[in-house]
Amino acid sequence: MTAPDPSLFGEIDPPQRLLMGPGPVNAHPRVLRAMSADLLGQFDPEMTGYMNQVMALYRPIFGTQNRWTMLVDGTARAGIEAALVSMVAPGDRVLVVNFGRFGLLLQEILGRIGAVIETVDAPWGEVVPMDAIAAAIERTGPKLVACVHGDTSTTMAQPLDGLGALCRKTGALSYVDATATIGGMEIAADRWGVDIVTGGLQKCLGGPSGSAPITISDRAADHIFNRRHVEAGIRRDDIGDGAGPRIGSNYFDLAMVMDYWSEKRLNHHTEATSMLYAARECARIMLGEGPEARYARHAAAGRAMTAGLRAMGLTVFGDDAHRMTNVTGVFIPGGVDGERVRTMMREAFEIEIGTAFGPLQGRIWRIGAMGYNAMKHKVLITLGALEACLRREGFALPAGEGVAAAMEAWDA
Amino acid sequence: MTAPDPSLFGEIDPPQRLLMGPGPVNAHPRVLRAMSADLLGQFDPEMTGYMNQVMALYRPIFGTQNRWTMLVDGTARAGIEAALVSMVAPGDRVLVVNFGRFGLLLQEILGRIGAVIETVDAPWGEVVPMDAIAAAIERTGPKLVACVHGDTSTTMAQPLDGLGALCRKTGALSYVDATATIGGMEIAADRWGVDIVTGGLQKCLGGPSGSAPITISDRAADHIFNRRHVEAGIRRDDIGDGAGPRIGSNYFDLAMVMDYWSEKRLNHHTEATSMLYAARECARIMLGEGPEARYARHAAAGRAMTAGLRAMGLTVFGDDAHRMTNVTGVFIPGGVDGERVRTMMREAFEIEIGTAFGPLQGRIWRIGAMGYNAMKHKVLITLGALEACLRREGFALPAGEGVAAAMEAWDA
Repeated sequence: MTAPDPSLFGEIDPPQRLLMGPGPVNAHPRVLRAMSADLLGQFDPEMTGYMNQVMALYRPIFGTQNRWTMLVDGTARAGIEAALVSMVAPGDRVLVVNFGRFGLLLQEILGRIGAVIETVDAPWGEVVPMDAIAAAIERTGPKLVACVHGDTSTTMAQPLDGLGALCRKTGALSYVDATATIGGMEIAADRWGVDIVTGGLQKCLGGPSGSAPITISDRAADHIFNRRHVEAGIRRDDIGDGAGPRIGSNYFDLAMVMDYWSEKRLNHHTEATSMLYAARECARIMLGEGPEARYARHAAAGRAMTAGLRAMGLTVFGDDAHRMTNVTGVFIPGGVDGERVRTMMREAFEIEIGTAFGPLQGRIWRIGAMGYNAMKHKVLITLGALEACLRREGFALPAGEGVAAAMEAWDA
Repeated sequence: MTAPDPSLFGEIDPPQRLLMGPGPVNAHPRVLRAMSADLLGQFDPEMTGYMNQVMALYRPIFGTQNRWTMLVDGTARAGIEAALVSMVAPGDRVLVVNFGRFGLLLQEILGRIGAVIETVDAPWGEVVPMDAIAAAIERTGPKLVACVHGDTSTTMAQPLDGLGALCRKTGALSYVDATATIGGMEIAADRWGVDIVTGGLQKCLGGPSGSAPITISDRAADHIFNRRHVEAGIRRDDIGDGAGPRIGSNYFDLAMVMDYWSEKRLNHHTEATSMLYAARECARIMLGEGPEARYARHAAAGRAMTAGLRAMGLTVFGDDAHRMTNVTGVFIPGGVDGERVRTMMREAFEIEIGTAFGPLQGRIWRIGAMGYNAMKHKVLITLGALEACLRREGFALPAGEGVAAAMEAWDA
């Protein structure tokens, strides 16, 4: 077997690109540096100490007192699948609150689990009214209600206050995918009363993709432990199997993951140590800034981006009342080639803005300002660059108005 | 919600501990530094360029020309589950070559998939003779034969030459879990003739846990693409669904992962960029050293460790003819408290050695020398420290003989 000449591929040296799409975004430099720390054995007391710190650090980020607050080793999507496959058994009825691509993803994952799927829907660009959710719960009697918080495909944020009460009235469990909002918009797992919330690092938490923070209520944990099934190679007298149906995945079996993160320290996967260091640093940065200040910073960025785009004569996509603060959809103006503008933004300015999915593909751009990139100068630079690119494409717009409006709106 | 005082948990600052267990081990400093590189958008041309480089770099490491050679975003266990859930449908008959804890793990994962499981077994400390595997294939007619290469629970390495031919004779697919050997012992996917091999970074490749290299033969890829099912939110006219049964997991659906890594660039998860940088650097280091030199270095380390332990009067566990080079099992001598020695090794010398699982728990230690730790001085220091700890526990042994024997064996 001939090896390729290793000199073919040189030192890692990515361009310094400003990532103003719907995520991933540039990580905070402190997070990148934290990943350079030396590794530890997975049951080393210092390692388990760091794991316990991560549990404590993520509770305020999720707005919860849940004991079971930890990491799933994989991207945000891994956290979603872990939550769903651990809660839902084949044949269980699940209601999905569906208002974009990530509502479709929940259905996709649930379909593979063998769930009976019901939906309550809103058109892309809107959210689902809470009374419609209430009626759908009444109508369908689900075992689980699953909902996305912020769906980046449509830039809409679903209000969630009251969801948990509706679910608990009928005994349903509840799940929220907060991948795109955690660290940028308030997550209030306990006040919402929802049972499991999952996230990712690569958006508002300002870290790399590859670790999925998760929080699990005690009642969801009871439900999951009732499905516990310990591997033959590591069975112990002090950990018995549950009576419920075995969880369909080993890697995503949250009973085993909880046993691994508990004082039982049951061996499961080998914790992704560098990603745990990253997750820990993301949380330290967020709590150091203060959650309220951080949410206000994201709100200012979203306000400035929206005001700037509008002052440039562009039309912002979706319902103003339910906009995510950290990503803004904007219609590609008639006669403008959206992909050519994205390429020009990247090649002339080293700025990435996002394309779109499904019915919005080719119709809108998605421009993010999240985590370490939810900063005034990055919003202003992006708007200025977009103006220059649109002019070059022949789109007439009032010179300098976008940046000026954004500066004003940031401080509003 | 009261946030914990972020100053409670300070800067990441793990102790500089020498990890001489069965993995994870200390990462090569170049790998840790590579993870500090800035992030890129997931469809950025520089990012997809790095993905293509990773594909090229891992082919010689797997000993393959397979086009489909890439990463699964998760720990080594994620790679195993991705391979199995993508190849096996409920009701499929699978033969597991079982000689340790990780053979039990394959059965555990397959059981959750709904496979009909057959096994061909060896006692812990031995491997399964190829003619026993041949007879078991004849007897059971499996759709897939699944086998661990090096099972760290027993420190045994299963010979695999000829396995592929046996499988292809009956039309069976084949899978090998090379988590514990990749980068340290030769992986010869093409010569073995096996269809899927998976690994991890955290052992002989000298990186952190959290990324699982995988290689997939064209015939296995055809089998998997026949189960392709594209998510509703991102369907495209140029990518049709397959006729086979849908894969039971979305995250581990290798059809979608291959479409993501191909020129189709179908959106799936957000690639774990920092872990990809780590995987790329692990491969560059290995190919720069040269695979043969690297395997020889691991063999020297294993030879030295074994010789040193024996010279100390200890008994090495398992069949000499099939020993992994990178991890050595050694019986805890009578009257010695194994856990107290491990604690003393850690507290007095900052060296970690491993405990054991299942029937070997409390009976053997597992001492590794892999990746960046398969070095002469680290083997010698470990043996010297172990001697000191055993003396302190009252175990009589010939002073200085272990280190001397290891020095001699390294160069043999």
